[in-house]
Amino acid sequence: MIKGIAAAGGVAIGKAFVLPTWEWDVPDQCLDPTDLAQEFERLYEGIRTSKTEIELMKNEFEEIAGPEESSIFDAHLAILEDPEFMNEIRGIIERQYKAAEVAVQEAINHFVTMFDLLDDEYMKERAADIKDVGNRLLKHLLGAPEVTLPTDTQPYILVAKELSPSQLVHLNPHNVLGIATILGGKTSHSAIMARAIGIPLVSGLESQLDPPIQTGEMIIVDGDNGKIIVHPDQQTIEHYKLIRTAQDRRKRQLEMLSTVDSITKDGIPMRLSANISSIKELDIALKNGAKGVGLFRTEFMYMDRNSFPSEREQFEVYRLVAEKAKGQAVVIRTLDIGGDKELDYFPLPEEENPFLGYRAIRICLEHTEMFKTQLLAILRASAYGAVKIMYPMISSVEEVQQANVILHEAMDELDQRGLPYNREIQVGIMIEIPAAVAIADLLAEECDFFSIGTNDLVQYVLAVDRMNEHIAHMYNPYHPAVLRMLRSTIQAAHAEGIPVSVCGEMAGDERSIPFWLQMGVDHLSMSPQSLLRVKQSILNTDSKQASSQALSWMKLKTSQAIEEGIQQYMNTLTDSDASFASSTS
Amino acid sequence: MIKGIAAAGGVAIGKAFVLPTWEWDVPDQCLDPTDLAQEFERLYEGIRTSKTEIELMKNEFEEIAGPEESSIFDAHLAILEDPEFMNEIRGIIERQYKAAEVAVQEAINHFVTMFDLLDDEYMKERAADIKDVGNRLLKHLLGAPEVTLPTDTQPYILVAKELSPSQLVHLNPHNVLGIATILGGKTSHSAIMARAIGIPLVSGLESQLDPPIQTGEMIIVDGDNGKIIVHPDQQTIEHYKLIRTAQDRRKRQLEMLSTVDSITKDGIPMRLSANISSIKELDIALKNGAKGVGLFRTEFMYMDRNSFPSEREQFEVYRLVAEKAKGQAVVIRTLDIGGDKELDYFPLPEEENPFLGYRAIRICLEHTEMFKTQLLAILRASAYGAVKIMYPMISSVEEVQQANVILHEAMDELDQRGLPYNREIQVGIMIEIPAAVAIADLLAEECDFFSIGTNDLVQYVLAVDRMNEHIAHMYNPYHPAVLRMLRSTIQAAHAEGIPVSVCGEMAGDERSIPFWLQMGVDHLSMSPQSLLRVKQSILNTDSKQASSQALSWMKLKTSQAIEEGIQQYMNTLTDSDASFASSTS
Repeated sequence: MIKGIAAAGGVAIGKAFVLPTWEWDVPDQCLDPTDLAQEFERLYEGIRTSKTEIELMKNEFEEIAGPEESSIFDAHLAILEDPEFMNEIRGIIERQYKAAEVAVQEAINHFVTMFDLLDDEYMKERAADIKDVGNRLLKHLLGAPEVTLPTDTQPYILVAKELSPSQLVHLNPHNVLGIATILGGKTSHSAIMARAIGIPLVSGLESQLDPPIQTGEMIIVDGDNGKIIVHPDQQTIEHYKLIRTAQDRRKRQLEMLSTVDSITKDGIPMRLSANISSIKELDIALKNGAKGVGLFRTEFMYMDRNSFPSEREQFEVYRLVAEKAKGQAVVIRTLDIGGDKELDYFPLPEEENPFLGYRAIRICLEHTEMFKTQLLAILRASAYGAVKIMYPMISSVEEVQQANVILHEAMDELDQRGLPYNREIQVGIMIEIPAAVAIADLLAEECDFFSIGTNDLVQYVLAVDRMNEHIAHMYNPYHPAVLRMLRSTIQAAHAEGIPVSVCGEMAGDERSIPFWLQMGVDHLSMSPQSLLRVKQSILNTDSKQASSQALSWMKLKTSQAIEEGIQQYMNTLTDSDASFASSTS
Repeated sequence: MIKGIAAAGGVAIGKAFVLPTWEWDVPDQCLDPTDLAQEFERLYEGIRTSKTEIELMKNEFEEIAGPEESSIFDAHLAILEDPEFMNEIRGIIERQYKAAEVAVQEAINHFVTMFDLLDDEYMKERAADIKDVGNRLLKHLLGAPEVTLPTDTQPYILVAKELSPSQLVHLNPHNVLGIATILGGKTSHSAIMARAIGIPLVSGLESQLDPPIQTGEMIIVDGDNGKIIVHPDQQTIEHYKLIRTAQDRRKRQLEMLSTVDSITKDGIPMRLSANISSIKELDIALKNGAKGVGLFRTEFMYMDRNSFPSEREQFEVYRLVAEKAKGQAVVIRTLDIGGDKELDYFPLPEEENPFLGYRAIRICLEHTEMFKTQLLAILRASAYGAVKIMYPMISSVEEVQQANVILHEAMDELDQRGLPYNREIQVGIMIEIPAAVAIADLLAEECDFFSIGTNDLVQYVLAVDRMNEHIAHMYNPYHPAVLRMLRSTIQAAHAEGIPVSVCGEMAGDERSIPFWLQMGVDHLSMSPQSLLRVKQSILNTDSKQASSQALSWMKLKTSQAIEEGIQQYMNTLTDSDASFASSTS
């Protein structure tokens, strides 16, 4: 038995396949000075090919795990544009007349050594990313083949020195039962991805693997407890088979909840709808029992293409979503680009602080033709289902009024064109900027509903960019300031008689349920993958008890105290839940 | 008479000096491929020299106009590190075998043409910056002399096609009475700088200058009304001399206010103290009647050097400030680096959104030795004056508690070393993160005073980076959300019995006085240059009237309505003020 880090939960039992490391011999070639320009061309060509590959992987992974997780690959693309890394490579070519692949290899070694020396989790992760991207670039410069995994064998347990996001993206959960890696930790990009795909992962085995595992050896990966068992005896195998069976059963039980009503033990209903970016996600959401779409992120329709989607193109997608939702509400959020989301064909200014920059409604209110095209498409779809419109990044009453002026222009245009639409279409706004919370009463007078985007709101309220790994630990939705602002938003909306939903990641976190019950949130919208888990938790909740707990947590002064309170409460739930599971087994 | 844009106020009468344009002949040299590496060395050498020069100018201008304004030069330094601009230059050298100066010239033309085509104020300003920085780089590559201004003549009026910040920084207000430029607008960097130095500027004269002004011609610059008068007749000269005399008199009247108490017409006192970064600024502040220091920005002690300042070094500065303040309070803010403030010897991670990143107290609580050194120095200075400590960027109760633990360690250490300090030293916090507003009641229990940093607070509340010129128009302290958050902070502090000051730029804006009176702010801290102007406005204010006005503005729903209300009120003040001025003239 070898103890590692529990990086992604679940149990896997099977034969090992040991992955060869992604390392090549780089011959130490020198250049003739006249070849410099040509060598730069080779380098740039390699970079272009690598970028295309990474973009492809990003899209693939987005299909599996959604847009949030796939942003890992944005960090990789950024490395290929990072001036420090690129200048290092160019410098070696220019000044030492070395071949591009030698320069890339030396630059990788330089940065990886430097970052490793700093002995800091964040920097180590940066080093891993540079190694991954650098190796990809090297592969193209050397014309080397990709290290591929067997697909024609029995399902196996993958054993590797380390696994990069590039490699993980291609893993098929049907072939790869579990993963064991020598390097890596709980917060590494690969761990995040393994959790998203649902493959058990134990990492950080370091020097304990002696003798090393051989391909074909029987091993068990216990991703819940961070253990690897090599050559398990029959008794251990049976033990883990029981655990796996129980886990599978729980998974099936969860699947059975898709048609069950979302309602607390004491009969308080809580509507659960889905956040989606594509028709494919809508299908998963509906399979998992989503009551409509609480957030349709339209920006992904604008990405990976060469020009803005036409009114007709958008209309067809919105109509299909509206029709598939079969009368249930579909909230379409207008274009939310800027920040970390860019369009190739619509250049935005370089910004020092893109999250505090030119984004979303701010762009739409300046580029009114583009905005109106989208509104026309949404309005036309409103003739085919319960479509609602939602404006993102609202910080003032004026913005809602200006957006509505354009909406009414679009309505007039449709009247003239004689096309049907719902004149009474509901118009809501995202509450995600602190200013919107402070004037929630004024904003509530201007619209039909609020949806709280906790991801951005928490970032702005705490002044913490959660993608910044150096301070990501400060990002906490259970900070007393955040909870107070959520409560005051909901109170202001209800005083004006409009409903409030929550569509940030917090909505998909079971720990937040007591707060929603206490604050009287009207509905929750979350990723399709979270729906059943959250529903199960709601079914296990007594709303009176949860609500009074939440009230007491909100009197605490620190996030830590609040989280401890939640954890204690969750433990009592899990205990009763576990006893339920064992009594039915 | 020629009509232009009123870019910086005041009147100037004198002879013109026409500045030759900063343009050179760049011979179209080609390179031998073997010279590529050497040519890159020349380019990098030129970049290094240009950077050093820009840094020098930045420091010079900071002395004149303070750190906020001098950040203009950070934008210039950034251009020399901008991958797009630099890649363009490198690309031309590498692929077309052109000399570095040709490549720089072509890259300038490329970007300037591109930005100009966009016909957008922000992009035009970017184009001007690139031209300015690019020309500096060209100058070094060509070994050309700097275009200098006469210093041995009579004071003159500077006439130029356009004036770059690089050129403006060297202007001496004693030599240059006023400026007229063909290009440029009210929001250009040069206009901001002219206002900071106090030189009248009319810009945007465009095609109206025909025939062009010649050196030696008599002209008048009317910076208040955006007019240039060429060859004025004697009557016009006399008219403008009267205006200038009135302006000078008002300036002297203002200077006489330095010893007058800051008190409203109806006897409500409002303490005014200064924001400073150096002893030099303290001297100006005291000359202008500041009641102590409301904000000592210590980060500037850490900049432009190779290592952290020692405890002794810091102690000497803090003691001098405390002694010069002669018993009046001196609030020393602990190190606030990160965001846009970097230290050469203390590398911080590259961040996507530095304003939402690793800054200020977040750094200090991780680098506790550095933090303790500063606290030791401040504590020791507390034996020599009314020194207080202030922590920046506080977002939680825990941070205050953690910082206080280190403060108490520092106290224990001084006890052991037998050094004197004020054990009852007051400890306050900056309120500049929305979370701090939301939990102001909890934070008030943990400290002795609040100081509201409106600059950052407004940025976070509205999610607007005010240095981002594309959305800077959205940065507005008179947004109803900001005003509500200011009010609730002050209420929470007073409920706990602790005082609140305001130290952001809003404190130096006369328009905010009615709000402070209404909300009961305890004191205002501002740049030394603003003290007398604000005091004059307070002296002209009836607190009851102002307070009831502010109360009515706070019921308005939009920034625009609020600003219109303020403007109407200010006009009534200015009228009575003007009648006061004319009655005494």
